[in-house]
Amino acid sequence: VITLASDFGTPYPAAMKGVLLQRSDARLVDVAHDFPRQDVRAAAFWLREVLPWFPPAVHLVVVDPGVGTDRAALVVRAGGHALVAPDNGVALPAARALAGRADDENGSGTGGENGAGRDGTEQVVEVFEVAYDDAAVESDTFHGRDVFAPAAADVHEAGIGDLETVERVAPAAEGAWTDLRFPVPEVRAGGATGEVLVVDGFGNAITNVPGPVLTDRAAVRVNGTERRVARAYAAVDPGEALVTVGSHGRVELAVNRGRGDERFGVTAGDRVELTWTRSAEN
Amino acid sequence: VITLASDFGTPYPAAMKGVLLQRSDARLVDVAHDFPRQDVRAAAFWLREVLPWFPPAVHLVVVDPGVGTDRAALVVRAGGHALVAPDNGVALPAARALAGRADDENGSGTGGENGAGRDGTEQVVEVFEVAYDDAAVESDTFHGRDVFAPAAADVHEAGIGDLETVERVAPAAEGAWTDLRFPVPEVRAGGATGEVLVVDGFGNAITNVPGPVLTDRAAVRVNGTERRVARAYAAVDPGEALVTVGSHGRVELAVNRGRGDERFGVTAGDRVELTWTRSAEN
Amino acid sequence: VITLASDFGTPYPAAMKGVLLQRSDARLVDVAHDFPRQDVRAAAFWLREVLPWFPPAVHLVVVDPGVGTDRAALVVRAGGHALVAPDNGVALPAARALAGRADDENGSGTGGENGAGRDGTEQVVEVFEVAYDDAAVESDTFHGRDVFAPAAADVHEAGIGDLETVERVAPAAEGAWTDLRFPVPEVRAGGATGEVLVVDGFGNAITNVPGPVLTDRAAVRVNGTERRVARAYAAVDPGEALVTVGSHGRVELAVNRGRGDERFGVTAGDRVELTWTRSAEN
Repeated sequence: VITLASDFGTPYPAAMKGVLLQRSDARLVDVAHDFPRQDVRAAAFWLREVLPWFPPAVHLVVVDPGVGTDRAALVVRAGGHALVAPDNGVALPAARALAGRADDENGSGTGGENGAGRDGTEQVVEVFEVAYDDAAVESDTFHGRDVFAPAAADVHEAGIGDLETVERVAPAAEGAWTDLRFPVPEVRAGGATGEVLVVDGFGNAITNVPGPVLTDRAAVRVNGTERRVARAYAAVDPGEALVTVGSHGRVELAVNRGRGDERFGVTAGDRVELTWTRSAEN
Repeated sequence: VITLASDFGTPYPAAMKGVLLQRSDARLVDVAHDFPRQDVRAAAFWLREVLPWFPPAVHLVVVDPGVGTDRAALVVRAGGHALVAPDNGVALPAARALAGRADDENGSGTGGENGAGRDGTEQVVEVFEVAYDDAAVESDTFHGRDVFAPAAADVHEAGIGDLETVERVAPAAEGAWTDLRFPVPEVRAGGATGEVLVVDGFGNAITNVPGPVLTDRAAVRVNGTERRVARAYAAVDPGEALVTVGSHGRVELAVNRGRGDERFGVTAGDRVELTWTRSAEN
Repeated sequence: VITLASDFGTPYPAAMKGVLLQRSDARLVDVAHDFPRQDVRAAAFWLREVLPWFPPAVHLVVVDPGVGTDRAALVVRAGGHALVAPDNGVALPAARALAGRADDENGSGTGGENGAGRDGTEQVVEVFEVAYDDAAVESDTFHGRDVFAPAAADVHEAGIGDLETVERVAPAAEGAWTDLRFPVPEVRAGGATGEVLVVDGFGNAITNVPGPVLTDRAAVRVNGTERRVARAYAAVDPGEALVTVGSHGRVELAVNRGRGDERFGVTAGDRVELTWTRSAEN
């Protein structure tokens, strides 16, 4: 399986699929091609949420505002998967998740990316660089087609475990690549301070605050306004706001059959201040 | 083949695909993931139109405003196909179509859903319930990934004819599930009263009035205004309104190279009054 | 492999996929289903850009404003590929590209479509007509499902090299089909006059002017305003305009992390006047 993810819309991903089919019999599965344009952080978030649900696969990821500059092309191997992506950090959070490593928000201090994890090899994230000759690449504006898709097909054909045998792939120097880490929320006795990481297509504002802070609470104050805590959207009336734990395990600001981002007045990157308003009840 | 249909946009469906690929080698085919958000009726309409064109397959359908409440998860078997869907009626019109049963609009009085159809077993619609442990499900807001996708994969692997062998699947009690039926149009000697069921992406307003009422007519009055009847969009000038029979066999309000919903001033759920303005000619 | 391209949005393409799966085990790959509605020229452009990246395949193309009229259904064979499409010109530019023929803009005077190309058989574009009985087709408004998908499946099953053996397929009379050619740019010593062919989803305005005119230039005037020439979007500051060579090898008007069409004030079909403002430098 080779999955594809990009911010290309259509029909550019089809050219990548053509290149993949020229070089591989892999099954092709689209993750998304409508990631917010050139928004590396949003793509990194969604890949971290979605890719761990796949069996081992090659993931071709192209959100690449630096296309045509001297940014490197990477292959990141973790947990039996390989991500082929530009060197802008987009692949690293998903790679850590695939390796079973502690999540970015609370994973600091666990040693270098290639250091030993909690239980050994499973937690290793290995970073490789894909050499390409800038002058020989057909286009300076579409490396997804001309650099990343060929590399993804070749990694798939070599086998993820043997990707070192792909001719132009070599281990990257330690620390030579760009990392990306999501902001760490602060959880206190009386509340939590976090941030909206992304807004999904339903308008749910997904924060970095861990879901368990809501356990046994009936309501919380969000940026000063008291809101109901509920387990499911439909547990409140249509049009009513709620604070819930989303499918990603984090606190989410939502409206049943409406848009949470609009009701709560937040968008990606905005600060979210939670205050516990009541003692445990529910 | 497992088809997928939802109102999720992206990238949530990719998580369902990952789960399916973990459990099955089925081919995955997207029906649509941009159904109107949480609009069970629109999804039910489109599934009824599209699924009968497929060879026997498992259809994973997740338009699920009640996610996280105690609504059941169903498998509906009909005509060699199986639909895996929440218990909100979304799967029933398609299931009747797959079973070759009389259509909802004119199918009343044919006996219970599991009663004998006009020619026996082919017309049977069988409803099963998928048991799941609410406390064990990973998320209360994404049963598509955590309940329906695993069930769809398991039904596919067991075989649609043997889905009773899937451990947590059992026949639902007669009448215990939610049905959904589209409104029945009224056809008279002088006209017809119907309703816009959905508007498609071209802006064509698709009604529940059967297409044959237009046979041999050159024009009809629609909500008081005379409009041309034409066999094809391009049979009228660009920008001109027309009344035609859509690919679903029903009366459709359209504009050649324009939007019918805007020109006719209608949207889903609106009443449509047709009056025959001329004797047969064409 | 059968690829699918249309302006249908969803879920209509799923009905075509169902029909294909009924008749064929081909792998199905979506090219795009959000081509601008009923815009034959835009679809023809994108197909010419994308299809040459595929291995030999059957390409089902349905952008069909004339559906239900007496326009013919075609199969166009070129370079080992077959395009199944309405007779409105949409398939011809891609077919020429697949055959390795000179591009439309500068390919006039090379003889008839089926005449010998520069190096013989490789450059042949062959046009076939698919007979269909208008009265027997289920719908007058969805030939993608009822005419083109069955033909594409049958061509795939017969084999592209043997498509003559498909019963209702026969060579079209020379010159009996509709062609489509893009406007030819004029390149002079002091500048070039071209046209915006399409705007992509990023807002890049793609012209018909060949990319090499920008070689060794640091800036050009575009419709009277001097603009920087750059090899990559990120070679200029975010929000800054640039003129570059896109992945299709043509001059493209862009803004780094912004929309070129808005900044340059152009849309598809608009004239673009380039003037060389400086002697070669860079």
